[in-house]
Amino acid sequence: MSATRIYQHDQPFRFRQGGELPGLELAFETWGELDADAGNAVLVHTGLSPSAHAASCPEDPEEGWWEFMVGPGKPIDTDRFFVICVNSLGSCKGSTGPASINPATGEPWRTDFPILSLEDIAAASQLVVKHLGIDRLCALVGPSMGGMTALAHLRQAPAAAKHFLSISSAARAEPFSIAIRSLQREMVATDPNWNDGHYTDQQWPENGMRLARKLGMVSYRSAIEWQDRFGRDQQSNYPEAWWGMRYEVESYLEAAAQRFIGAFDPCSYLYLSSAMDRFDASAGCDGGLTEALADTRLDSALVIGVDTDVLFPARQQGEIAKNLRALGIDTRLEMLPSPQGHDAFLVDSDNFGSVVGGYFRAIARREQIGE
Amino acid sequence: MSATRIYQHDQPFRFRQGGELPGLELAFETWGELDADAGNAVLVHTGLSPSAHAASCPEDPEEGWWEFMVGPGKPIDTDRFFVICVNSLGSCKGSTGPASINPATGEPWRTDFPILSLEDIAAASQLVVKHLGIDRLCALVGPSMGGMTALAHLRQAPAAAKHFLSISSAARAEPFSIAIRSLQREMVATDPNWNDGHYTDQQWPENGMRLARKLGMVSYRSAIEWQDRFGRDQQSNYPEAWWGMRYEVESYLEAAAQRFIGAFDPCSYLYLSSAMDRFDASAGCDGGLTEALADTRLDSALVIGVDTDVLFPARQQGEIAKNLRALGIDTRLEMLPSPQGHDAFLVDSDNFGSVVGGYFRAIARREQIGE
Repeated sequence: MSATRIYQHDQPFRFRQGGELPGLELAFETWGELDADAGNAVLVHTGLSPSAHAASCPEDPEEGWWEFMVGPGKPIDTDRFFVICVNSLGSCKGSTGPASINPATGEPWRTDFPILSLEDIAAASQLVVKHLGIDRLCALVGPSMGGMTALAHLRQAPAAAKHFLSISSAARAEPFSIAIRSLQREMVATDPNWNDGHYTDQQWPENGMRLARKLGMVSYRSAIEWQDRFGRDQQSNYPEAWWGMRYEVESYLEAAAQRFIGAFDPCSYLYLSSAMDRFDASAGCDGGLTEALADTRLDSALVIGVDTDVLFPARQQGEIAKNLRALGIDTRLEMLPSPQGHDAFLVDSDNFGSVVGGYFRAIARREQIGE
Repeated sequence: MSATRIYQHDQPFRFRQGGELPGLELAFETWGELDADAGNAVLVHTGLSPSAHAASCPEDPEEGWWEFMVGPGKPIDTDRFFVICVNSLGSCKGSTGPASINPATGEPWRTDFPILSLEDIAAASQLVVKHLGIDRLCALVGPSMGGMTALAHLRQAPAAAKHFLSISSAARAEPFSIAIRSLQREMVATDPNWNDGHYTDQQWPENGMRLARKLGMVSYRSAIEWQDRFGRDQQSNYPEAWWGMRYEVESYLEAAAQRFIGAFDPCSYLYLSSAMDRFDASAGCDGGLTEALADTRLDSALVIGVDTDVLFPARQQGEIAKNLRALGIDTRLEMLPSPQGHDAFLVDSDNFGSVVGGYFRAIARREQIGE
């Protein structure tokens, strides 16, 4: 049983790059209770692929993608905070996206879906927040792509939140991550079954998605983690193909790809991936990020990065923190020594749990939440 | 006009993993003059894709792949040294490999070629050295895969050389680089035109080769170089495809891939790439590299690495140097600050030229060459 609810937005939604939909469906979940003054709300913008199901709950005991982080007594403590997670606009986990049905044709939108920007995702998620009766968030949380979306959110609505947790994110896409994502998209779009987006259940660009997810894993983890974890271990029964699948690391990648292939729509993947490339939080501002966020009314920020992250490197975490400080915001930068690279926020519960838990306890004290 | 010569080896050649060919053709080039005592010979083992044409010469003025490094008055000074470069066994630049004709069928060997190991490449190149009348090399040089081949060479023939220059190499493949190479091979082998290796000129796995080369470039260069070089620059006339080819870095990758596609045989690529994954210089030695190279009679070694190399990281350069030192070999480790990652040895002539030139001048003094 799913705890995911749908907010039906029955007014036209205009996309930043052009195009409009007559309405939206936005999938979201919540944990905890909203205070009478609606002052304890925390919004989580997700990375590229997660659903709204960040954590289990009584109605849906299935483990969420951030199970160690969100829940009663956990670092983002739902005994104190009311936590909201929205499936990104353009995704395929319940929210409107390229895999949704175009009412005009009765077929999925696919490549006829309007071009998507992270600013659109931020704007859509704000509709859910408003729908829940929240004027101002206590905290905005964004890991990975979600941190970029959160910056877009703060630029659109400078008073949207009191506190901001940015994790392994970036103020803009840089060429190394653009190269990786562009190559992933090319893998999908050159799969013969891609068929200009007109794939079917029978002719699905499975191979392109498999290759793209494997490249994703290569960029999400780190060499040092894999050296410790796999070394040169071989599979006990490796297939006879002389060109591959001999080593443990290869079967690990294959298993990760298999989990992803059936679970994500190729078109949603290309839309979200492209939106990340186009993102620049300070687009149009000669004064850079400080100009873009000049009106932001944050009381504090915590910027977390990971030493071994090659996709969202330390330098980019430092840039976010430096610019927030330049705006007079009480900002802490934490570079964690996790070996797991960009994915550390999903798996390194020790390092992340303690830093994030400390930040949210401080917020609770400061805002007198749960006392 | 090519300066490449062919050594025709008319005796059976047995491959390490099994299989035998009745003979081999090995393409090689030389620069400079061999001393009367044959004491000034330098053998260069190449990386995965280069030909034997390391540098231009009067007979072939076309720029070689290591033009700044090899030549009269250059860091590896052909006024003093006799330099040999052999196209690797299994490659497709004149030496016998999967793209060569199988005399039994009149067709290319393709996947019927024996499984290739770097040890086979090392053994084949030694046949050329012997053919040239050289008992002992003055120096053995190996960048990238060539450094691995050089370690195999030293294990097979401990007295093969007096001096050893290892550049951005490794004593064994580790899981991060295995993952990258495995994914590259999968891109080629899942191209519908791969056809189990039975591709034709008309049905060539071009897309797989394009994707593989782009991933190669991502792993060969560095994020910091690209940030400085491309930033978020856009192409002036980018194609309309919403999913890619908007940014300069994407057209750079496309151009690099286009240069590679027609110039390298897909089957050779898979054979050489697999051979790198299987390589472990200390295979079968409980005592590791010091045991594997215990009999090595090197007088000196220089191990060069690059800080920004993710494919052959600093740690692996340190391992080679540490083990050579443990054998009592006069070994220097130089970690260069080049921004160009693994490819730096091909493009950073300032940093590499000065360090390599210094090493070869020291060798010349020590061995009284060119005086």
